[in-house]
Amino acid sequence: MPAIYPVILCGGSGARLWPVSRKAVPKPFLPLVSKETLFEQAVRRVASDDRFAPPIVIAGAAHADLITAQLGDAPGARLVIEPAARNTAPAIALAAALLPEDAVMLVCPSDHHIADAPAFRAAALDAAALAREDYLVSFGITAERPETGYGYLRRGAPVSGGYAIREFVEKPDLARAEAYVASGEYCWNGGIFAFRAGQLLAELAAHRPEMARLVRAAVNDGITDGLNFHPAAQPFIAIDGDSIDYAVMENTTRAAMVPASMGWSDIGNWAALGDALADQADAAGNVVCGTADLSQCSGVFVMSDGPRISAVGLQDVCIVVCGNEVLITTRDGAQAVGKLPGAVHQ
Amino acid sequence: MPAIYPVILCGGSGARLWPVSRKAVPKPFLPLVSKETLFEQAVRRVASDDRFAPPIVIAGAAHADLITAQLGDAPGARLVIEPAARNTAPAIALAAALLPEDAVMLVCPSDHHIADAPAFRAAALDAAALAREDYLVSFGITAERPETGYGYLRRGAPVSGGYAIREFVEKPDLARAEAYVASGEYCWNGGIFAFRAGQLLAELAAHRPEMARLVRAAVNDGITDGLNFHPAAQPFIAIDGDSIDYAVMENTTRAAMVPASMGWSDIGNWAALGDALADQADAAGNVVCGTADLSQCSGVFVMSDGPRISAVGLQDVCIVVCGNEVLITTRDGAQAVGKLPGAVHQ
Repeated sequence: MPAIYPVILCGGSGARLWPVSRKAVPKPFLPLVSKETLFEQAVRRVASDDRFAPPIVIAGAAHADLITAQLGDAPGARLVIEPAARNTAPAIALAAALLPEDAVMLVCPSDHHIADAPAFRAAALDAAALAREDYLVSFGITAERPETGYGYLRRGAPVSGGYAIREFVEKPDLARAEAYVASGEYCWNGGIFAFRAGQLLAELAAHRPEMARLVRAAVNDGITDGLNFHPAAQPFIAIDGDSIDYAVMENTTRAAMVPASMGWSDIGNWAALGDALADQADAAGNVVCGTADLSQCSGVFVMSDGPRISAVGLQDVCIVVCGNEVLITTRDGAQAVGKLPGAVHQ
Repeated sequence: MPAIYPVILCGGSGARLWPVSRKAVPKPFLPLVSKETLFEQAVRRVASDDRFAPPIVIAGAAHADLITAQLGDAPGARLVIEPAARNTAPAIALAAALLPEDAVMLVCPSDHHIADAPAFRAAALDAAALAREDYLVSFGITAERPETGYGYLRRGAPVSGGYAIREFVEKPDLARAEAYVASGEYCWNGGIFAFRAGQLLAELAAHRPEMARLVRAAVNDGITDGLNFHPAAQPFIAIDGDSIDYAVMENTTRAAMVPASMGWSDIGNWAALGDALADQADAAGNVVCGTADLSQCSGVFVMSDGPRISAVGLQDVCIVVCGNEVLITTRDGAQAVGKLPGAVHQ
């Protein structure tokens, strides 16, 4: 059985985790859930297992040094340095164009948390088997609650150890999300994929021919520097960026999914990080990273890089202190943090 | 008409205004409501008006330097340095024992805010007139809302331009406070008093003879150093401290009050300070001292000595950043701030 090629995407800015996540050191490169960074966890999740090849990491030049440092001595890891951010479809296509066309690629965001790595690897093997049959495969994450911040996949007919995808659904409102969870037919779209490289490029050529042409040109004219690859800037910058879901998954007739129940979170905002650390909560559901005195508080998440936090009477609030910035948001407001002036004007 | 002698008490710790108010520089000596400190405002309120003598300031040794600095060149101000804190009755009795027995003293806390100084002075003249008739006079502050954090005075029969006090009421619950405000018979007990010095000492001797004796001994054996006076430590420390309300006002048959409507606040906690600064509030009732970006917030009070505060979705919350401490409390929780570990273990 040929190895699976992990492709680790490092494009996210993590603006909703400001002020800890900042442009210089964004979310993937921070030790949020454990002492390892999310990126280090993403690499380690598929390391030391010969069913997986060394990873291909796709990132911008601004983070190349961080990535090199955090890869450490990971053997054979390659780094593709994007000349500009053009969303996930071009990034994934770059990796596909650098791989043998029959290679199966496993596309993973670098800024998610997965508590159960063996379950992840098992789902990856199922997904790879489907990808070898030229399905374009999404991980369908078990929807544990009516989350309104995620996209959903609706399960269709069984195919070869997985399911066809019957429908892609954008972030729903609460009533709809509750109905999805109750139905049992819907999963979260976790942004994790498996493709045969040649099939992905063929589908991209069919649905986004200009993007496919420009990616191919960027690879053809690119420069290899040891384990690093620099796509040619001019064609890549000319790409009209799009997500892999919009560019390919929602257009192909061969979209499939594998179910995955693996303690997944996209750590999409401070409330989500608090949830991912729930095993550290006190009896009132407060989670503290740093020094805090909480009185009459419940559901409070605190992260401080130094100052003591003292709080009285708060419920369902996230408090984050980092450098010269103090952020306080309700759980419900956490999604809006990325639009605060501090997060926007970094 | 002989002058009125202001007696300014500096005993409060202001622990509920932690972390800005700290032992080294407590509440009276901070510029909370304006560029002047509360103490400076208390001094200026009765300065440059020859109906008032220079003030006598009563304080602990720890704050003598602060007081000297903040008095500046106030002519003739005297400072009485308490050997220990023994609550208000001994402090006031010290001043009384240092004054001619027919002097009328106007006792003012140094840590309150009074927006309307002319109204304060007018009430002081009314109170002094009653004090000259040997009434022990409290300021009865117009109860503007059903405050549960204050004591109340119940108005009795008219006497010589004021009213007898029919009843002293401890901090009531909300229902009771609402009934008090509705009745029109109750005022807030603002802790501002006028006494003839000799009468105050006579009443103290009647109701707390041991306290009166020890105060007299502390004054007799005290040391005058220019405009400063150091009561003898041994007798003063032996005093079983008590408030002037408990020691004298609730026992005398000559308790009276003058009504006062003068924009008074004891700035008793962060929510009260926010209220005192309501003229600076934005349309959503947020008051910001420092740098803050508030999104979907209402009734939020912010004070920061440097770091930017970014907040989303909060209602009726006070946020205070000072040095290495960050405090966040609901309005309702603000009374409990003084019991936080940070405030207790300074």
